[in-house]
Amino acid sequence: MRTSQLLEQLMDSLRCLPGVGPKSAQRMAYHLLQRNRQGGLALAQALSTAMTDIGHCSQCRTFTEQDVCAICDNPKRQETGLICVVESPADISAVEATGQYAGRYFVLMGHLSPLDGIGPADIGLDVLEKRLQHEPIQELILATNPTVEGEATAQYIAELCQEHQVGASRIAHGVPMGGELELVDGTTLSHSIIGRQQLKYR
Amino acid sequence: MRTSQLLEQLMDSLRCLPGVGPKSAQRMAYHLLQRNRQGGLALAQALSTAMTDIGHCSQCRTFTEQDVCAICDNPKRQETGLICVVESPADISAVEATGQYAGRYFVLMGHLSPLDGIGPADIGLDVLEKRLQHEPIQELILATNPTVEGEATAQYIAELCQEHQVGASRIAHGVPMGGELELVDGTTLSHSIIGRQQLKYR
Repeated sequence: MRTSQLLEQLMDSLRCLPGVGPKSAQRMAYHLLQRNRQGGLALAQALSTAMTDIGHCSQCRTFTEQDVCAICDNPKRQETGLICVVESPADISAVEATGQYAGRYFVLMGHLSPLDGIGPADIGLDVLEKRLQHEPIQELILATNPTVEGEATAQYIAELCQEHQVGASRIAHGVPMGGELELVDGTTLSHSIIGRQQLKYR
Repeated sequence: MRTSQLLEQLMDSLRCLPGVGPKSAQRMAYHLLQRNRQGGLALAQALSTAMTDIGHCSQCRTFTEQDVCAICDNPKRQETGLICVVESPADISAVEATGQYAGRYFVLMGHLSPLDGIGPADIGLDVLEKRLQHEPIQELILATNPTVEGEATAQYIAELCQEHQVGASRIAHGVPMGGELELVDGTTLSHSIIGRQQLKYR
């Protein structure tokens, strides 16, 4: 027998979060009720505005509440002539965290997957093609995931670039920094040998 | 550079949930935005009503949106004359799940902790004492946690019971079912020897 219907509803609703099962949902609900009701209310407010107001950037398709996101809107980033193509908005955060890249992005929000009925238009390649036609783009950096689908998607976009005579590059695959060679899997190791770079002597 | 301020606010707010760090918060926010906006809105709604409307049962102090919770309000549970004293509402769920207990509860919402300034009134012992005076209670089952504070709290409540001439019992400490004797810690094992029960032959 439950003592509160609202509490039960809250626990059920919390399970829509990824990685939250019945036990965690219970712990979260009790924690908020007992120790942080203000935080709970703030979360409710943030959730409802985010779910309602956040759409996609009309240029790069990442999440934003504006028409054009802050990165696309930045003239310094436009000057670079670089566009980094990633699968998800989380990948933007990862690339930004490196501090190595100062260009713009294009977010596919997925990858090509004909078996699931996900074609070029579903991952915004029509939008990307228009940008290739009308914008002065020097190079597209293809930073899709190194999975079968990610590689196929990169290949498809590379062909688009060829059509429109825009340079395309793929991020390097190889041995991760700080790892040990004997622990690296064979596919990665063979990629690192095939993709070896000439050492430059000054 | 972030692409959306609302998204950043959402990630910050999600971190008020226990066990959610920056990475999980990011994963949750992207998951809701990409795959389950309806669920996110429902969660916002459930959170805001729960945080605003859920209070404490006037009799047992557990979480409920009514004045008296469903368990306290149940005449069959009143007839048993039993009250199980637990530290938190989650403990009620645990005891209810056993199906072994059909009486009512009293939730302390914590335990005595003089060093933190938590005295008897803070854990509702004034309310409990009034119930001991005015209600026909046969027995208080003390089911506080088997920690130093839980034991001290149980001891304190047992003395209250003695004053008001109400029976009191403590849940059994001992070897957990399905465990192996050699893996059980010494304190638990000595409790299980001290608290041994005579076998009854028919």
